[in-house]
Amino acid sequence: MTAPVFATPEDAEAAFYRAFENTDLDAMMDVWSPDDPGIVCIHPGGARLRGPEAIRKAWKQIFEGGMPLTFRLSDYSIVGRPGMRIHNVREEIRLRGKDAIAAVVLATNVFIERPGIGWRLWMHHGSNPVAGPDTAGDDDDSRPTLH
Amino acid sequence: MTAPVFATPEDAEAAFYRAFENTDLDAMMDVWSPDDPGIVCIHPGGARLRGPEAIRKAWKQIFEGGMPLTFRLSDYSIVGRPGMRIHNVREEIRLRGKDAIAAVVLATNVFIERPGIGWRLWMHHGSNPVAGPDTAGDDDDSRPTLH
Repeated sequence: MTAPVFATPEDAEAAFYRAFENTDLDAMMDVWSPDDPGIVCIHPGGARLRGPEAIRKAWKQIFEGGMPLTFRLSDYSIVGRPGMRIHNVREEIRLRGKDAIAAVVLATNVFIERPGIGWRLWMHHGSNPVAGPDTAGDDDDSRPTLH
Repeated sequence: MTAPVFATPEDAEAAFYRAFENTDLDAMMDVWSPDDPGIVCIHPGGARLRGPEAIRKAWKQIFEGGMPLTFRLSDYSIVGRPGMRIHNVREEIRLRGKDAIAAVVLATNVFIERPGIGWRLWMHHGSNPVAGPDTAGDDDDSRPTLH
């Protein structure tokens, strides 16, 4: 099967969260920059996963955990240059079919454009704000830590 | 005083950690992309701080905490395009004068080049790997979480 060509960073990001919601491992890996040993994935509270093998292995474990999730994204901060785009976004995560927020994650998604294959994910860095869902959005309620 | 012009992302990053080690608030803010409401800083376990005011306020609090730290950086993953550079890096943090590692942080640093003022920091996103210092580097020891 031919991997899809994402025409924009938005297309690649939508495919990322769709694959996550569908726990579709092949679709998930199709979103990443292929054959690229530098790609990085950091799940909230997790170590750094680098390269396609380590990243695929972790998604496989997560998807086999079998918890179907839905994502609502908000509060985008965006910066870009030709061929590269950064999205920092607030993920509101729910168990599928539930109203309650299961988790809030702050995610940095880095997209790069590669010749012939369009936009792909180069990095996903997620973290859990300690403050909890209500204050996880922005600014004033933050409590900086040691670092 | 005129803000410095950083000729490379490396220069800006070195200035960031130097300002952090020196708890120098003005030097810290000189590293960031100025007059830019979109800049983002996420301290490990913290909420998202967006814009110069919120970011400055948090650094002021951290620096007033008065804990002098030293940083050792390693395990760079780097990607760039003209005018933009991403560094994902492992920060080994020590209290000044101590040998023991106080904390390990995985940091994503996003740098952009701005006309006339050189390279500046657009985002700093830090997270604590739950696994702890020994396994915080890379890959195999990671335990992916819910997300």
